[in-house]
Amino acid sequence: MAKGNSKIVNEFFWPVRVYYEDTDSGGVVYHTNYLKYMERTRTELLRNHGFEQDQLKEQENIIFAVRNINVDYLKPALFNDLLQVGVMIKRLGPASINFAQTITREVDDILLCQAEIKIACLSADSLRPCPIPENIVRTISHAG
Amino acid sequence: MAKGNSKIVNEFFWPVRVYYEDTDSGGVVYHTNYLKYMERTRTELLRNHGFEQDQLKEQENIIFAVRNINVDYLKPALFNDLLQVGVMIKRLGPASINFAQTITREVDDILLCQAEIKIACLSADSLRPCPIPENIVRTISHAG
Amino acid sequence: MAKGNSKIVNEFFWPVRVYYEDTDSGGVVYHTNYLKYMERTRTELLRNHGFEQDQLKEQENIIFAVRNINVDYLKPALFNDLLQVGVMIKRLGPASINFAQTITREVDDILLCQAEIKIACLSADSLRPCPIPENIVRTISHAG
Amino acid sequence: MAKGNSKIVNEFFWPVRVYYEDTDSGGVVYHTNYLKYMERTRTELLRNHGFEQDQLKEQENIIFAVRNINVDYLKPALFNDLLQVGVMIKRLGPASINFAQTITREVDDILLCQAEIKIACLSADSLRPCPIPENIVRTISHAG
Repeated sequence: MAKGNSKIVNEFFWPVRVYYEDTDSGGVVYHTNYLKYMERTRTELLRNHGFEQDQLKEQENIIFAVRNINVDYLKPALFNDLLQVGVMIKRLGPASINFAQTITREVDDILLCQAEIKIACLSADSLRPCPIPENIVRTISHAG
Repeated sequence: MAKGNSKIVNEFFWPVRVYYEDTDSGGVVYHTNYLKYMERTRTELLRNHGFEQDQLKEQENIIFAVRNINVDYLKPALFNDLLQVGVMIKRLGPASINFAQTITREVDDILLCQAEIKIACLSADSLRPCPIPENIVRTISHAG
Repeated sequence: MAKGNSKIVNEFFWPVRVYYEDTDSGGVVYHTNYLKYMERTRTELLRNHGFEQDQLKEQENIIFAVRNINVDYLKPALFNDLLQVGVMIKRLGPASINFAQTITREVDDILLCQAEIKIACLSADSLRPCPIPENIVRTISHAG
Repeated sequence: MAKGNSKIVNEFFWPVRVYYEDTDSGGVVYHTNYLKYMERTRTELLRNHGFEQDQLKEQENIIFAVRNINVDYLKPALFNDLLQVGVMIKRLGPASINFAQTITREVDDILLCQAEIKIACLSADSLRPCPIPENIVRTISHAG
């Protein structure tokens, strides 16, 4: 990254194995399952920063909800493939986060799928938008 | 049925279409999805008798939970197959119901899958076993 | 529709019931399952026009694959909701179709989810893009 | 294990994290998903012994299919739980394997679910039962 660039963009990766449950009779991973892999990876990103979503709900009364997904399917993943799912914060708003996510095949590093996903922070009680807790903002805006 | 048999056993059927989401890369319906079809059919049996599970939870404070499944996979269902899922009450206990369920292929009436499934009635609050409400017992014990 | 409008846009609808399998512990339909409902509806649109995808694969050597999804989640669907899933052809290319899809709650006609979904026509052998068979183009371009 | 015991029973364990995708609106893991966890673990047991199922299909023309499941649901798993899924070979027939499987909660080692699952070895072409390849029998009968 160019010197003087004050913004360090970190990408977090999570490995996912393709099991029979993930495939369809076309012989490839069923298209909605790539989006499940992406959510697992967002969950692991938060856990990696010390945030457990069951505790966020109980202690901070917040949950995260998907607002928009824009996903491109480039190449299919197959049964038994090992995948690397990437996630990067693209924009951090007061009550929402835009993530850029990718899925690549481990063996040859080929990009299979990419998406931009907007998540809203909601009050667990009212399900209305609410500010992302400050400690989360501070942690993830520095750490990627 | 033998003359004089005072117990009329009714079987309730619900049609299910196999979509891509249900299949796996073996080219057949993924094995756990037959059990989803069976639950849909138990839900529709209750609805057919006038019982909506969201209302049972809110008004009667009960939910139903699966306790045991014993399922035989005989022949596979394929993408695009139309199936008939059957359900029959085999035993009605004070706080549990044993269902006998079948899945047949509509086009040739071949039996693909059969199961016996034990459901417990639980208090929605405590998740402890509780008696099945009397109006449900009365309705389903007569109707099948 | 305004008089003199030469383009009749037909929307096809398919009813979908929400079962336990579709929900998550947030108490709502899990976000990827709306996309399954949309695929069921595209399948039923084709069937409604006389096209069965298992036959298209065997006889015409084509399959359809999802290329891009852009989906907005507006309001959640709940367990036991009856939904109406709509589909409309937005653009019909030589080897791809763009569908506009909606999910509304039957009871009050509230829009829960909307998406634009691009589907490619592929050779079932090579998985390379191939022209949509002419009889399909002719049928669905007139019928909506 | 007692000295002189000629039968060494090894249990293989695989960790599984519960994500939102796995739960239902009852607040617990949806009942069929425990069976997916068990299949992931059988797959990892085979991989642990050097057997990849995509290669077994291509090179040995065999696939494994579930024939019977008998599963007891004892206690529910919750969102975010870390589980340990166990698998042990109970009976090794010429063309089938009976597995005993368990799911325990990592944090307190409580047993949530147990099952006996019969798997058949099938010819990938004909889908008829066929003998389990000898190198697989030899490896897994010694190793558990």
